[in-house]
Amino acid sequence: MQRKLMHVGPSFTSYRVQMAGVSENTGFASPDFLEAMKNSLEGLLYVAGADDTYLPFILPGSGTVAMETVTSIIPKGSRTLLLTNGVFGDRWIPILSSHGLDLDVLSAEPGRSVSLDDVRKKLDTGRYQNLIMTHVETSTGVRIDIEKVSKIAREHVDRIIVDGVASLGAEKEDIARLGITAIISASQKALGAPPGAALIVVSRSALDHINDFSYFFNLKNWITPMERYLEAKNGYLSTEPVGVVLSLSRVFSDIRAAGLDERIEEHRRLSLALNEGIEAAGLKVLAERDLWSNTVTAVLSDHADEIVRGAMDLGIEFATGVHPKIAGRYFRIGHMGYVNDFDALAALSVIERAAAKCGEKVRIGDGVKKAQEILYDLTKKNGGGQM
Amino acid sequence: MQRKLMHVGPSFTSYRVQMAGVSENTGFASPDFLEAMKNSLEGLLYVAGADDTYLPFILPGSGTVAMETVTSIIPKGSRTLLLTNGVFGDRWIPILSSHGLDLDVLSAEPGRSVSLDDVRKKLDTGRYQNLIMTHVETSTGVRIDIEKVSKIAREHVDRIIVDGVASLGAEKEDIARLGITAIISASQKALGAPPGAALIVVSRSALDHINDFSYFFNLKNWITPMERYLEAKNGYLSTEPVGVVLSLSRVFSDIRAAGLDERIEEHRRLSLALNEGIEAAGLKVLAERDLWSNTVTAVLSDHADEIVRGAMDLGIEFATGVHPKIAGRYFRIGHMGYVNDFDALAALSVIERAAAKCGEKVRIGDGVKKAQEILYDLTKKNGGGQM
Amino acid sequence: MQRKLMHVGPSFTSYRVQMAGVSENTGFASPDFLEAMKNSLEGLLYVAGADDTYLPFILPGSGTVAMETVTSIIPKGSRTLLLTNGVFGDRWIPILSSHGLDLDVLSAEPGRSVSLDDVRKKLDTGRYQNLIMTHVETSTGVRIDIEKVSKIAREHVDRIIVDGVASLGAEKEDIARLGITAIISASQKALGAPPGAALIVVSRSALDHINDFSYFFNLKNWITPMERYLEAKNGYLSTEPVGVVLSLSRVFSDIRAAGLDERIEEHRRLSLALNEGIEAAGLKVLAERDLWSNTVTAVLSDHADEIVRGAMDLGIEFATGVHPKIAGRYFRIGHMGYVNDFDALAALSVIERAAAKCGEKVRIGDGVKKAQEILYDLTKKNGGGQM
Amino acid sequence: MQRKLMHVGPSFTSYRVQMAGVSENTGFASPDFLEAMKNSLEGLLYVAGADDTYLPFILPGSGTVAMETVTSIIPKGSRTLLLTNGVFGDRWIPILSSHGLDLDVLSAEPGRSVSLDDVRKKLDTGRYQNLIMTHVETSTGVRIDIEKVSKIAREHVDRIIVDGVASLGAEKEDIARLGITAIISASQKALGAPPGAALIVVSRSALDHINDFSYFFNLKNWITPMERYLEAKNGYLSTEPVGVVLSLSRVFSDIRAAGLDERIEEHRRLSLALNEGIEAAGLKVLAERDLWSNTVTAVLSDHADEIVRGAMDLGIEFATGVHPKIAGRYFRIGHMGYVNDFDALAALSVIERAAAKCGEKVRIGDGVKKAQEILYDLTKKNGGGQM
Repeated sequence: MQRKLMHVGPSFTSYRVQMAGVSENTGFASPDFLEAMKNSLEGLLYVAGADDTYLPFILPGSGTVAMETVTSIIPKGSRTLLLTNGVFGDRWIPILSSHGLDLDVLSAEPGRSVSLDDVRKKLDTGRYQNLIMTHVETSTGVRIDIEKVSKIAREHVDRIIVDGVASLGAEKEDIARLGITAIISASQKALGAPPGAALIVVSRSALDHINDFSYFFNLKNWITPMERYLEAKNGYLSTEPVGVVLSLSRVFSDIRAAGLDERIEEHRRLSLALNEGIEAAGLKVLAERDLWSNTVTAVLSDHADEIVRGAMDLGIEFATGVHPKIAGRYFRIGHMGYVNDFDALAALSVIERAAAKCGEKVRIGDGVKKAQEILYDLTKKNGGGQM
Repeated sequence: MQRKLMHVGPSFTSYRVQMAGVSENTGFASPDFLEAMKNSLEGLLYVAGADDTYLPFILPGSGTVAMETVTSIIPKGSRTLLLTNGVFGDRWIPILSSHGLDLDVLSAEPGRSVSLDDVRKKLDTGRYQNLIMTHVETSTGVRIDIEKVSKIAREHVDRIIVDGVASLGAEKEDIARLGITAIISASQKALGAPPGAALIVVSRSALDHINDFSYFFNLKNWITPMERYLEAKNGYLSTEPVGVVLSLSRVFSDIRAAGLDERIEEHRRLSLALNEGIEAAGLKVLAERDLWSNTVTAVLSDHADEIVRGAMDLGIEFATGVHPKIAGRYFRIGHMGYVNDFDALAALSVIERAAAKCGEKVRIGDGVKKAQEILYDLTKKNGGGQM
Repeated sequence: MQRKLMHVGPSFTSYRVQMAGVSENTGFASPDFLEAMKNSLEGLLYVAGADDTYLPFILPGSGTVAMETVTSIIPKGSRTLLLTNGVFGDRWIPILSSHGLDLDVLSAEPGRSVSLDDVRKKLDTGRYQNLIMTHVETSTGVRIDIEKVSKIAREHVDRIIVDGVASLGAEKEDIARLGITAIISASQKALGAPPGAALIVVSRSALDHINDFSYFFNLKNWITPMERYLEAKNGYLSTEPVGVVLSLSRVFSDIRAAGLDERIEEHRRLSLALNEGIEAAGLKVLAERDLWSNTVTAVLSDHADEIVRGAMDLGIEFATGVHPKIAGRYFRIGHMGYVNDFDALAALSVIERAAAKCGEKVRIGDGVKKAQEILYDLTKKNGGGQM
Repeated sequence: MQRKLMHVGPSFTSYRVQMAGVSENTGFASPDFLEAMKNSLEGLLYVAGADDTYLPFILPGSGTVAMETVTSIIPKGSRTLLLTNGVFGDRWIPILSSHGLDLDVLSAEPGRSVSLDDVRKKLDTGRYQNLIMTHVETSTGVRIDIEKVSKIAREHVDRIIVDGVASLGAEKEDIARLGITAIISASQKALGAPPGAALIVVSRSALDHINDFSYFFNLKNWITPMERYLEAKNGYLSTEPVGVVLSLSRVFSDIRAAGLDERIEEHRRLSLALNEGIEAAGLKVLAERDLWSNTVTAVLSDHADEIVRGAMDLGIEFATGVHPKIAGRYFRIGHMGYVNDFDALAALSVIERAAAKCGEKVRIGDGVKKAQEILYDLTKKNGGGQM
């Protein structure tokens, strides 16, 4: 039996992408690496919707590394409003605190998002120079409306920072148009490359004053390296994860070939079919309907952990729930990277069966049927995308 | 978008299996190759249900190479009864003819199998020393009942040869128990390794008199090499496809780990769900219901080729029909190798959508729902297999 | 310790070449396979030095499969003169004989080549319609002068067949200019792809009358498939080794990028350094000096098998000797595929050390020094090749 | 032509090691990852020579990440003596400074090491609670004698930190016996895995008081995750570089199979042959003879950069020099990871040729000859190592 990974960590990958990372005598100064680094930096700007007033950064690390590094653009003495819809939004708190940066927190109940009214009220106080929000909250599958928040925020703050770890590559970021200062992400989630690279895009104007609290987490040290890499020159500061970058470069080439909008639409279609299928089967999606994301779906069930184990036996690895308020009472499905819309049916097949076995009241077949109807409606015109 | 291969040629493979074939400085005399060759030869006996009165052979080549090589056990002057349910059964005719071997042919209409009565009548004439049949006919998806045919045949002929190209590894062969003299197959179909190796298992007693019509296609030349390989010694005669054998060895290890019966049951479950789903959706399976195979499903449609193209756009590669009597009026789905039962739903999703787009009267969602109900019924006790 | 393969079977490969063969859902009708098949067929013509009066063939199999298949162009009743310098030349005897084809044999002592005078005398009898010769004899490392033999032969015979198994890709073949009718080879030797594909190039005029002695070994059956593959269309007759062809396609692209002449020169340089180094170290090369090949070097030693074992411990796998007249008294070094000229030094380092340990009188360091001097002389102008 | 990487960054790798990292649906909670993580953590203790009073850490990142993270064990207010023999030793200065940690620096001229006398004198002042040293300085190839320094230091300081980025896996560390508090390294250098993982081993007693200056660079946050991983349980804090860890696990298994001492001896042999060969050829090694390391060799030449370019054309990628005092006047050879002792000859062949072409006075062949004599002397008893 072939196993499928629908976890929220490293995502569906592709043979070609992983193969691209198996290099033959490629070092950090080798021509093929330098070409891949340049292509990846340019690709990163493309998926972020950034223009040439932004500078892209690729560092050895993870999403958390990207978070802590971008924090160096926040001046000491300024104050940040953090919007958090769950565990990974909350992670900004210890990061900022460890560097003595002041922040206030607006948070939402699991499955909900902070309200625009509350955001406006907070910002109207005039106390904040920075706003941080998580586009898709991995712990709950909730997507915040970055367009609406940015519209409000850019009239009040100097810096808007978006955590795009679970969104970049599968949701519209459009940071230049929205006036977002910086976005961070990682190689292994919505992009579908292997884990190992931290990704950051920052407005060049925000790089003038960098907070000097670390050597590695200091964007100032990385400006010249990245500018050199953008010219396909060796920009060594600390050894980049060569294989991961070679893979990432392939991902960005694939996205350009398919078109970013088409790729986002494919993820939206899968997600809609999956979410609707779950509810048709008789289970409940954690996120409110208008907050469903393209990449992560959280499902409520009193047998959540048992369903995750049963699904593993049936061939799919899901993720258990991690939000402390409801841990053990929900599980999560990642649908990121090199997916196809019919993967929604595989997920539903396994969920319906594993849930029924635990005694959940599910209507076997109704979930997959509903999902199929949605896929039919959304693809009947064009026969599907291409890549 | 990730593409899925459900063709009837090279089948679903697995990363691990292909990776196992990427070797580091491995030649045909290297220890790791010799170990893989031994493991593969032993594995071949295992999946064929052969005991130590049989000798296994792995040759560079394809299914056709295996067919022509096994023909060397047929004595000149003897007469063969060939049972053929389609194109690949028919291929034995030019092979035997090119070597001056006499044969008579019993053939069936597309979707049907030759009748046991006809077989019995032919054999009762006492004119035949050999019988050849194809376990699963790749051009129609029809499975012949090798147990019943063998029971009749072994009272009349000296040699029963089974073409297991589309069955070995996903159907019960059990050749020792059934008194089958030889079975042939290839690496890339039901076994799920890459193409490049021809597989043959022959009763040692049938190796005493080998037809001398070729150098390469002469099993006599291969006996000593294979006996040496079985002892993990270099048995070089002609360069074996080293990488393919390394992959094949991994496949046999996987099958042993899962258990052959469990693996066959997984394929049966997928196949049943798929076939029932197709009919529930309003399409017609070519094979009669009691002839459905575990590995190939043929579907009738006046828009067959259009459906295959539409499915490619939606992410799955099926095979067009090749039976000359109905070419263009059906297509084929391969479900061999490293599949999972929920792949049936992916196939149905794509078929329903692609067929509807062509104007076929399909009931969107009914196919996938029916398939899901069957998967539920067949897995509700144990929660699925393991591997 | 990293082991290096310098055997005469599957040769030095490259990561990229093996990786190219790890496919993602690629079947024998998939677009990427069809493109690779076309590129490989065209590449095959290029390295053979063939023009459009020739047709290329790629079959599942091995060098022996290519030998037996090309035999189908020899008419029954015609007579063949076989020139053989060793074991693999001799293999043509049972192949032709099994198909009732008459032949006479001119053979040479190990390390020598049949003399042009003897060839001329034989051909002057007017008894022969076909001539077969092996460009590089793998069992002895001897290279025959195909240019001189062809010049004599094309005035006497209708068909000249060259066995290029150990030469194609590393020696000049130039078959159109030399008037050679057909050349055969295999994927895994001088070309450096994995084993699994038999390669044949035949003059189209020789395809008019094909000997009908087999189904698979009948070039007539393969003409239409190959003509379709040359147009990147599915030409299925028997399943091609998909992964091997994907790798082979990469090899041909690499050769075109480097230039065939440059690639041949690199092999010549390595070979010269190695052969001279062996003699400088105090050992004796089996082949006469003017018969040294670019791809295989055979070394005489009374401790040959012991040296091969010792070399394995030191990190290189060589091949033992197989010529029956001197088996056990020599060993062989393959230098084919993705080699670099400095690999000659690695081989010499290991040979000197392993030979000394067995009690051979070798001058430690003199072999490697001599080889280095030759490499210096041959590269001092241009600083080496590129690829 | 096959290119060889002898850079000081990502090192010689092996097919098997890279292949091990190409995973099939492996996430950070998947059983195969958890097993690889456990094996890697245990392997890390083994190569460091640590016992169960130490805790191992594997983080997403690089050598620099490991440096900055280990800094968290240094208490604010304590004072550090830094011994630096070059650029990478110097890197500790901005790292410690950015966190407000006081330090004094003892540095050496390029090619030399700080003297034991100077170390003793400094420590005798009683001003230092911490000592940091770099085992092998990548910018010069100099190895410090960690045994002698540790013997002196452990009577004066509370914490000895060793930078083992260019040594761990190819030099003896033996930290428990030497009383070293912590050692850091990275996956891609002497160990020979792909880059992407930061490696740290710390005495458990030093983990009681962790400096709270960061979220990610705070070892306290990583203690529980690593203790869980050591039990093969999910210890998620930030996504680990899954593929890199799978590869690293293979490396540690390989080292255990060969034996750490044997692996170190192989590197020593190669290094000695290379260094002696360079001097025999007429070039000058930067490091003083008794400071030669097993992993990095720096060579003085006024044509250094030209030699590096010429070597690239001849098939080997070396590294240019980076020490600011002599940049452009030397180049570096990395001999780390999956090397074989005869790689010394390949390097020398290319260096002699490239240097001669630039007009350097080199004695062609004398370098390789000398190296070969050394390899002979060091392997004549046992015929080489095994792995």
